[in-house]
Amino acid sequence: MGARGGIDLGGTKIQAVVVGEDHAVLGQARHPTPRDGGPAGVASQMIEALREAAGQAGVEPKALAGVGVGSPGAVDHAAGTVEHARNLPDWEEPFPLAKTLSKALGTKVALGNDVQVAVDAEFALGAGKPYESILGVFWGTGVGGGIVLEGKPWLGRGAAGELGHMVVRRDGAKCPCGRRGCVEAYAGRAAMEERARRAAAGGEKTRLFEIMEKDGRTRLTSGVWAKALEHDDPLATRLVHRAVEALGAGVASAVNLLDVEAVVIGGGLGTRLGQRYAKRIERAMLPHLFVSERPPPVHVAALGDLGGAIGASLLVSA
Amino acid sequence: MGARGGIDLGGTKIQAVVVGEDHAVLGQARHPTPRDGGPAGVASQMIEALREAAGQAGVEPKALAGVGVGSPGAVDHAAGTVEHARNLPDWEEPFPLAKTLSKALGTKVALGNDVQVAVDAEFALGAGKPYESILGVFWGTGVGGGIVLEGKPWLGRGAAGELGHMVVRRDGAKCPCGRRGCVEAYAGRAAMEERARRAAAGGEKTRLFEIMEKDGRTRLTSGVWAKALEHDDPLATRLVHRAVEALGAGVASAVNLLDVEAVVIGGGLGTRLGQRYAKRIERAMLPHLFVSERPPPVHVAALGDLGGAIGASLLVSA
Repeated sequence: MGARGGIDLGGTKIQAVVVGEDHAVLGQARHPTPRDGGPAGVASQMIEALREAAGQAGVEPKALAGVGVGSPGAVDHAAGTVEHARNLPDWEEPFPLAKTLSKALGTKVALGNDVQVAVDAEFALGAGKPYESILGVFWGTGVGGGIVLEGKPWLGRGAAGELGHMVVRRDGAKCPCGRRGCVEAYAGRAAMEERARRAAAGGEKTRLFEIMEKDGRTRLTSGVWAKALEHDDPLATRLVHRAVEALGAGVASAVNLLDVEAVVIGGGLGTRLGQRYAKRIERAMLPHLFVSERPPPVHVAALGDLGGAIGASLLVSA
Repeated sequence: MGARGGIDLGGTKIQAVVVGEDHAVLGQARHPTPRDGGPAGVASQMIEALREAAGQAGVEPKALAGVGVGSPGAVDHAAGTVEHARNLPDWEEPFPLAKTLSKALGTKVALGNDVQVAVDAEFALGAGKPYESILGVFWGTGVGGGIVLEGKPWLGRGAAGELGHMVVRRDGAKCPCGRRGCVEAYAGRAAMEERARRAAAGGEKTRLFEIMEKDGRTRLTSGVWAKALEHDDPLATRLVHRAVEALGAGVASAVNLLDVEAVVIGGGLGTRLGQRYAKRIERAMLPHLFVSERPPPVHVAALGDLGGAIGASLLVSA
């Protein structure tokens, strides 16, 4: 098989890669996810990004063995459609993403769940490589999860892995999903930002928004959080601590249930905050682990920012 | 294969069965678990119970194809030993249970985890029969769990299924396991009894202990709780409601992670309180389910009190 394409479709960015037979990245491009133009606008941007990555790699898109896409929302593999992609603009109805991309790029397109392909990539090529069974945790705007058991992704009835919506405090904080007390209500970057904005509006001192503006951002990105932590910003420190505690309880609960060999932490915040915070999550798990004498190691996703796109490229069948 | 024996070793009772080729129960006996005499005393009582069940079935123990044992604690299958059986008296060190029983009964003995064999029995012969993937929840003195995925028990590194120690409230109620906020801290009968005793000592009105004494019990058994609920006892009603809410959150978290097809509720309280309370747990799950439009059905364990012993008999290989 020749070169393959992979696209990681996120709420803030579209990451495209072109990889060779050995999964080495030959070209890559990152575009912001357009906020208007709906699914068709997003698809256009995905096509542009993939063309740019292919150009870098020196191959025509139509010469690729195929392109895989890791998408949020509900992916219908057979129909090649995506619906209910809530982090994307005006994307409720099923949109024929596979067909649209395939027509423009001149090669076949396979769709998969964004978090699951990222977990598959870490399992096959990254931090999960030494293990048979892992739990992947994607700590970003939301908190996603994926499970690999005895070498195979476990998808349940199609929606397994929702670690971010395990309950760590009944009747607890409001989650962006509308429920209460989920891991994501404490650890999702969107929920953290909302809480930070309320605290700042209430007069709490923080450099988070100053750093955000200096960086030319309109949201508290993972980089903004990381810089605020470096400055020992008290609000950032408190909210990240709160997130780590919620992740510790949620991941420990998942480990008590599944007893996997290892945990891999990825996502925007997970990779940006890195090993030091992976260790903190490992420590935050300890008080909750039922079998506390052999806690599973917690690794940072090894493929970093490109993991999702590389994982998407694994969807292209031989 | 001829008749087989099965023993369910519990903290309060030892249940033995002898089953035929079609898994029909040919004889059964139930003895209280002795509180003194240590592991050897418990083993003697297990031998007695199995002999009694075999007598009822009209077979000699040594004529059985084998005897399976579902045991609490850490079971070492290869060594035939059980250790850390915390609900059993003075049972910390490894005890050679398989050898002791095998010598006395004159047939081979296989050990398994008590909850897992009960889940396997419900999957193979009971309420889980129509499904490929189930979560079994055993609601009794503690809260145990077992997982079957695509027809096979999922054991992880040997300790999977600890649904009772998933966290539903960080820094919440103290659990008998020593940790905080576990499902079992709210829903385990031992934790519920402790809370009831404290409430009664604090002057709260309840008929729980009156019913207990009338029944000739020294503990709040499942039957005592059930009768108190029938009398609309306010303390019993409140504590069972609290247990149901914790189970709802914990089971929903497990479903969000695993997306199994169905949930089976067994255990002393689960089977005694029956379908009406299984429905309540199903309702208590709803506010926490991430995919709320297709909640998995919650069934009561169909094999009832004998499920653990029947499941243990499945350990005897052909």
